[in-house]
Amino acid sequence: MTDSNLEFKTDPNKKSRADSKADSKTHSKTDTRIQSSKLPKKEDFSEWYHELLMTAEVVDNRYPVKGMCVWFPFGFAIRKNVYGIIRELLDPDHQETQFPLLIPENEFMKEAQHIKGFEDEVYWVTSGGTSPLDVKLALRPTSETAIYPMFKLWIRSHADLPLRIYQIVNTFRYETKHTRPLIRVREITSFKEAHTAHATWEDAAAQVETAIERYSEFYRRLAVPFLVSRRPAWDKFPGADYTIALDVVMPDGRTLQAGTAHHLGSTFARTYEITYEAENGEQKLISQTCYGISERCIAALVSVHGDERGLVLPWEVAPTQVVIVPILLGDKEKVLEVSRNLLEKLEAACVRARLDTSDERPGAKFYKWEMKGVPIRLEVGPRDIEKGVVTLARRDGVKKAVPLKDLLTAIACEANELQAVLYERAKQFRDGKIKEVTSIDEAIEQTEGGVALVPWCGNEECGHELEDRVAANILGEPQGQSFPEAACAVCGRVSTGRTYMARQY
Amino acid sequence: MTDSNLEFKTDPNKKSRADSKADSKTHSKTDTRIQSSKLPKKEDFSEWYHELLMTAEVVDNRYPVKGMCVWFPFGFAIRKNVYGIIRELLDPDHQETQFPLLIPENEFMKEAQHIKGFEDEVYWVTSGGTSPLDVKLALRPTSETAIYPMFKLWIRSHADLPLRIYQIVNTFRYETKHTRPLIRVREITSFKEAHTAHATWEDAAAQVETAIERYSEFYRRLAVPFLVSRRPAWDKFPGADYTIALDVVMPDGRTLQAGTAHHLGSTFARTYEITYEAENGEQKLISQTCYGISERCIAALVSVHGDERGLVLPWEVAPTQVVIVPILLGDKEKVLEVSRNLLEKLEAACVRARLDTSDERPGAKFYKWEMKGVPIRLEVGPRDIEKGVVTLARRDGVKKAVPLKDLLTAIACEANELQAVLYERAKQFRDGKIKEVTSIDEAIEQTEGGVALVPWCGNEECGHELEDRVAANILGEPQGQSFPEAACAVCGRVSTGRTYMARQY
Repeated sequence: MTDSNLEFKTDPNKKSRADSKADSKTHSKTDTRIQSSKLPKKEDFSEWYHELLMTAEVVDNRYPVKGMCVWFPFGFAIRKNVYGIIRELLDPDHQETQFPLLIPENEFMKEAQHIKGFEDEVYWVTSGGTSPLDVKLALRPTSETAIYPMFKLWIRSHADLPLRIYQIVNTFRYETKHTRPLIRVREITSFKEAHTAHATWEDAAAQVETAIERYSEFYRRLAVPFLVSRRPAWDKFPGADYTIALDVVMPDGRTLQAGTAHHLGSTFARTYEITYEAENGEQKLISQTCYGISERCIAALVSVHGDERGLVLPWEVAPTQVVIVPILLGDKEKVLEVSRNLLEKLEAACVRARLDTSDERPGAKFYKWEMKGVPIRLEVGPRDIEKGVVTLARRDGVKKAVPLKDLLTAIACEANELQAVLYERAKQFRDGKIKEVTSIDEAIEQTEGGVALVPWCGNEECGHELEDRVAANILGEPQGQSFPEAACAVCGRVSTGRTYMARQY
Repeated sequence: MTDSNLEFKTDPNKKSRADSKADSKTHSKTDTRIQSSKLPKKEDFSEWYHELLMTAEVVDNRYPVKGMCVWFPFGFAIRKNVYGIIRELLDPDHQETQFPLLIPENEFMKEAQHIKGFEDEVYWVTSGGTSPLDVKLALRPTSETAIYPMFKLWIRSHADLPLRIYQIVNTFRYETKHTRPLIRVREITSFKEAHTAHATWEDAAAQVETAIERYSEFYRRLAVPFLVSRRPAWDKFPGADYTIALDVVMPDGRTLQAGTAHHLGSTFARTYEITYEAENGEQKLISQTCYGISERCIAALVSVHGDERGLVLPWEVAPTQVVIVPILLGDKEKVLEVSRNLLEKLEAACVRARLDTSDERPGAKFYKWEMKGVPIRLEVGPRDIEKGVVTLARRDGVKKAVPLKDLLTAIACEANELQAVLYERAKQFRDGKIKEVTSIDEAIEQTEGGVALVPWCGNEECGHELEDRVAANILGEPQGQSFPEAACAVCGRVSTGRTYMARQY
């Protein structure tokens, strides 16, 4: 691995800021990993995914604990931009905060339904230094049991409600299944969990709607289409009244749960005795919600848009939005001068731009920056300069000459268009992976590489039988849609009920 | 606790953004904690400090595990601004990244000197679900042993150097001593640790200098003066060649170690076999540094500037920089209109401003926002409006009438002046707490409530004797200063050597 690969910046004492970005040293060496490896075909999704994360330097899965990864600096830069969007969407009416990682066993064990859902997955701290601890401490798998004892102290009256907080923290699950970077991990490094408290059950239900709207907006900004389902009773969050989930259809047709919102009713309020004084002086239990998104959102982003040449990043989250590649033929000085001016102009317009003046050949540079998912490449050559244009290449393959004088406008347009193309392409892919079926046999066939929409009367027994016989999961009732009557694939009873079924990550 | 106390924002669906900030509901209730409690005297530092953190809502120490606190939303907002400065200072030539929390026992135990320094303080995860783990996992007390096995994979050639990364993460120490919020804790929630790799020992030494420069700049921006010392051999970081530390003199004259930079030499490189290919083809060990700052920087900020009326926050880190308090006498509508216009004007100028239109009396509002450390208060009254002025009150007590038309300029000036006043005041305090002494008896007296500068020949035995007899710690040789010859307080040998001595937090 070379420093250009990691994109480590060089010593600022040695050169000016602009020079540092255009540093030839940083890019002078053959970027062996990127140049020598070709990604597997995307049809071989699992291999492609693993190779891509390493080659594009998103996360390094060579850390010596199963299911725990290191964020490469480049991957971390993507993460920062992605979580910046989440913060932007929540900050207007949520407050960011931070709670401790470790939860004492007695608090953790208070809510019976909840603990049942997590007890097999919890890491326990049992000693400090060389002495055993008096009270075992759980590494939070999620923070309800850390936060709600504090809610009890914080909430006094109806005027304290609604209360909406969130934190972005590391959480832990002792996964016994096969782990997969960003998808099934033992340390979730970037769990955004929001927790809200309300005066009534209805207020909490409205908050669940709001949460799903915000998450939908979030995924639209990543140009990632999704499905929204109400999870069946047996698959809701432990302790919740109900759960609404967002699923993303992955390249192999399996689905990835990529966000959930839970109506907790007053289950936790009862356990942790969280009450408020109503306007009439009565003490009432609060109603609660919680909703979360993890680094699976990065897995979805990477998987949905990437191709065999590497990452494809939407403009808003790309660490480098525009790369300038000078074609050093003819009057090299002139080409470099125009390139440097372009860089300055783009930076002044708050575009995250780079100028690649390394010694590599243009083809190698194209290859490298495509791997990194840079949305727009500008090629600056002597003949183009004569004509007063540069060649603009979009990461989706579109290439055109653009007049230098209109460049900023053109880049803004192309960024928007790329966003639209990515979303449309992903939406078509997703839609092509969903099929209405009428029988169990059809559901079996469809869920081999996609999502089946199956008539289901809603009965729990039929649901379990469906899952068993189809060997796929019930994602639940599609939200915001209605369907004509049809016969339940199990019992034949006629209803308007449907469920998505898929193999899940 | 009321919502105004936590400053939870109200539902944005109900009102516009501007209204939400000027919402009377949010501030309509008596803010019981702030109004009813008066802080203890600052001379009773420990009580004052604890009360302030709770009353101003920085951290909540009622979490049910000793040494672990919850960041209140308001405290978290301060933290965000403070760590924003650290990022700004490091980002030009460091890359942010993130490594796992859990370190397998075998990696953790590899470096003997290092483990000796930490083994009594490490929390161990020993089970996952109900099964014991094959390999115990340490909760990082610091991340050398998590990061350096990856450096071995990342570093290949001289061109990969220097390598400079950092992360801001939670780390853990099983403290057996008395804990104190933000100062001595078991979960360090906000450990910024940087790790660098270099081709030569000299390059690493230069990096230590750079680190200390950056940290100095950081504390200057917080208006917090400090001392820079080279720690004695027996108090350096476990595994380091040497350690340079920044100490802040706290109100009671004890010192708080608030930042350290370590030259690691090739100790870890040898243990983790981190080599690079030099230009001549030779394989060489890298030289390393690491440097860290924790939430102690917030403890220093709060303690150095705060007073008996609450926090005093420098402009740059204050969540609310300007609060507008309308004095609702005479033509109330006119007063509110002018106040709203002011708010808009300030927000347009990117000032973090609030308008307090709650039903409380102006005095109660003054009290509340002083507790929160707001640097500038604007009082808008009918008589002032007639004269075309507002009353500007700075958190340090300065009060003046300012023409409405020059307001933005005036605010910028006053913010600068406040910064200068805070720094100067703190510097005078610090300087008053340091005294040159010549004997052990004088050192004993001085370290009861301050820092002694003691002649010390540098000999380790004399050092230990000094610490024992004075019953205070040797902070080490002051950096960047020189002194005339004097007799060592222990052995009487004449040298130019000096050391700071103090009781440390």
